[in-house]
Amino acid sequence: MTELYARLRATDPETWRAYVEHAFVRALGDGSLPRANFLHYLRQDYIFLIHFIRACALGVHKTDRIAEIRQLAGTVHALSEFEMQLHIQTCARAGLSEADLATTPEEPENLSYTRYVLDLGHRGDLLDMLVAQAPCVLGYGEIGRRLAAETGGPPAGHPYAEWISTYASEEFRQVGAAHEALMEAVCRRRIGPEPWTSPRWAELAASFVTASRLEVGFWDMGLRGG
Amino acid sequence: MTELYARLRATDPETWRAYVEHAFVRALGDGSLPRANFLHYLRQDYIFLIHFIRACALGVHKTDRIAEIRQLAGTVHALSEFEMQLHIQTCARAGLSEADLATTPEEPENLSYTRYVLDLGHRGDLLDMLVAQAPCVLGYGEIGRRLAAETGGPPAGHPYAEWISTYASEEFRQVGAAHEALMEAVCRRRIGPEPWTSPRWAELAASFVTASRLEVGFWDMGLRGG
Amino acid sequence: MTELYARLRATDPETWRAYVEHAFVRALGDGSLPRANFLHYLRQDYIFLIHFIRACALGVHKTDRIAEIRQLAGTVHALSEFEMQLHIQTCARAGLSEADLATTPEEPENLSYTRYVLDLGHRGDLLDMLVAQAPCVLGYGEIGRRLAAETGGPPAGHPYAEWISTYASEEFRQVGAAHEALMEAVCRRRIGPEPWTSPRWAELAASFVTASRLEVGFWDMGLRGG
Amino acid sequence: MTELYARLRATDPETWRAYVEHAFVRALGDGSLPRANFLHYLRQDYIFLIHFIRACALGVHKTDRIAEIRQLAGTVHALSEFEMQLHIQTCARAGLSEADLATTPEEPENLSYTRYVLDLGHRGDLLDMLVAQAPCVLGYGEIGRRLAAETGGPPAGHPYAEWISTYASEEFRQVGAAHEALMEAVCRRRIGPEPWTSPRWAELAASFVTASRLEVGFWDMGLRGG
Repeated sequence: MTELYARLRATDPETWRAYVEHAFVRALGDGSLPRANFLHYLRQDYIFLIHFIRACALGVHKTDRIAEIRQLAGTVHALSEFEMQLHIQTCARAGLSEADLATTPEEPENLSYTRYVLDLGHRGDLLDMLVAQAPCVLGYGEIGRRLAAETGGPPAGHPYAEWISTYASEEFRQVGAAHEALMEAVCRRRIGPEPWTSPRWAELAASFVTASRLEVGFWDMGLRGG
Repeated sequence: MTELYARLRATDPETWRAYVEHAFVRALGDGSLPRANFLHYLRQDYIFLIHFIRACALGVHKTDRIAEIRQLAGTVHALSEFEMQLHIQTCARAGLSEADLATTPEEPENLSYTRYVLDLGHRGDLLDMLVAQAPCVLGYGEIGRRLAAETGGPPAGHPYAEWISTYASEEFRQVGAAHEALMEAVCRRRIGPEPWTSPRWAELAASFVTASRLEVGFWDMGLRGG
Repeated sequence: MTELYARLRATDPETWRAYVEHAFVRALGDGSLPRANFLHYLRQDYIFLIHFIRACALGVHKTDRIAEIRQLAGTVHALSEFEMQLHIQTCARAGLSEADLATTPEEPENLSYTRYVLDLGHRGDLLDMLVAQAPCVLGYGEIGRRLAAETGGPPAGHPYAEWISTYASEEFRQVGAAHEALMEAVCRRRIGPEPWTSPRWAELAASFVTASRLEVGFWDMGLRGG
Repeated sequence: MTELYARLRATDPETWRAYVEHAFVRALGDGSLPRANFLHYLRQDYIFLIHFIRACALGVHKTDRIAEIRQLAGTVHALSEFEMQLHIQTCARAGLSEADLATTPEEPENLSYTRYVLDLGHRGDLLDMLVAQAPCVLGYGEIGRRLAAETGGPPAGHPYAEWISTYASEEFRQVGAAHEALMEAVCRRRIGPEPWTSPRWAELAASFVTASRLEVGFWDMGLRGG
């Protein structure tokens, strides 16, 4: 873990715990989450993904460095080709067609989180946005790996085995590592090696906490159901 | 050819001809273009490509339709992985390292064209930007195919055989066709099937002509040399 | 009332009524709204105003027509000089300092509404954003005038007399009329005189309804308290 | 002069001199500039002003600090109400109607400069854009005051007395001072008190020099005529 991410994550441990140990997450882990709630979450997550792709694309737009462009362009491509298909297939197996997904109304908790990240991208620089995306990219990996460990696998019959395996996978760990490395690289060129001594630090840390708080809202929405 | 593109292209035939039959293009075709001018052009085109990728990424950002996101994300990915590599390799064979490319100062003609397209993307909607990108994507194909026909190949020993072959290729023709189809699709959902009857038409046609005029400036820059 | 606004407002009468006749509004009108809830609302409304100004400024950025620039620039100036001061003074009389305001955490309902409008501005054209701002600018006037009529004034001793008078005022009616006129003018140059026959209509109407729904959420937040 | 501006201005003294002591400037000062060239410049400067206002509005959009919003909103308002009128009146006295101005085609040198500044605003943060605007706001004041000193007034009969007086005025000096103070304040909260020790410095200084170079191009365009 980079010191940058470690410090962001440690800014407000209570909010972080509220996010990664949320009742929705625990219910996913022990399999007690009602199917209807999971499907409601999944439909919203499909919409979330659209706007997350739009944010990564904004990231490409916000740099002129080849290495950063290539990494973010790769993410945009992977998300729109593979991750999107994964969502569509998972929903299809659950009886939700692409037409169902396309007509799902977006919940306010989804709007607030996705548009907050996008607005940071427009208001600030690339670093401001990458920091606000970190709780999603890195938090999901942390949750996935913990649930995999707790459930011992997860076992094949577990109702949410696929979700847990996806986010516990080595592949997703690498997605997180790449985001961390990019955040570190952009931070070094925009601030320097010790961003916590910069006047920007309070604002960066606050964005990270706000984004984590909005993740809590997203789980709340999942528990509430559609 | 879609009627949309045919009408845009026919708005100002003199400017279009000044672009696709520019002295730089003719000198590329008959091989008389001095190597130094070609290399100057190539270095600027490398910088152009960076900002063109940033524009396509802005396009992804400016839509929430899956099909449009996937097409533009594919373009961003292809340009940043393959086209960019092609430029780097061609420059390498000409003795220009990536470090040379990275330190090349951007010419005003490059700035004016690329930033004009980007600004249209921010000021207007996705269609406004796609129209301003059309002279580049579709004009280069037209030029490539005409030079291939005129040079009969081009023959293997032609000094600019690779450039001509690239833009005359079936692959690049498909890139153009995809841009035309996307422009048509976005036009249908933002204006309708007969955009030339819309109050927006004059502005769209003017953007197309301005972008073509800025392509003329780009060739002028190539002829002037660095 | 322009036909454009009349049709947008009539798209989903139930959501519109849920907004303009919300329990928060009724409690404002009959004076039963607890002071704490009003102050919570007022603090959030101060934050809302910051992002609403940012949206109007984005509007200036999104046009090159002098008349539109001047109108929106006038709004940005008026909001940041006068409306902002009004909020600060009202809060001051209620015992809330500017420092209190500056440290108020932003509620999710505030984030979702303001950032939704801003994102529409970036994703679409100026018209897309003006339509999403209409429920706020025009709905507040409608609410203010109705409450003034219902309370007969409002009478001097009414606890929310100042709020009602502000939004019932001739001055605010003109703000609404100016927004309506600008929306109409931009609509005519981007779509034409009968936008309801355009393929864009469904999307414009949906944005209007979503923004109205987010206004309902804003009142809900006021009722819930801080 | 703040140390920030002094250091930016001293980055590339040759380019700075090429800008503030350009042949166009000297010809303005000694009155030898042909009227046609001045009018060509004035028409382009009118278009420049539109996009400069759009940049200041983007600046409002890119901050959530009240003091910064108010200052930039004041600039947007002043430019669109007063400066714009000044241009329209000066052009009117020279026989150019508003309709003439509205149909003047934008020169490439105008496009490259204005869109470069706007793109920096989108790609970076508020500071990146303010630095690229500085050569214009502060350089014009420096030029105006120098020409006023050199011409001793300027005397009433001087053909460009009004231009010189405008930019030599105490009022315009305050506009420059306000821009310098804002740049300093935003720099302090985004980087710190010694930005020249930051990894961002090379990029900030390069933007300042590029913007100055584009000012040189603007004068070249004026000399070339329309």
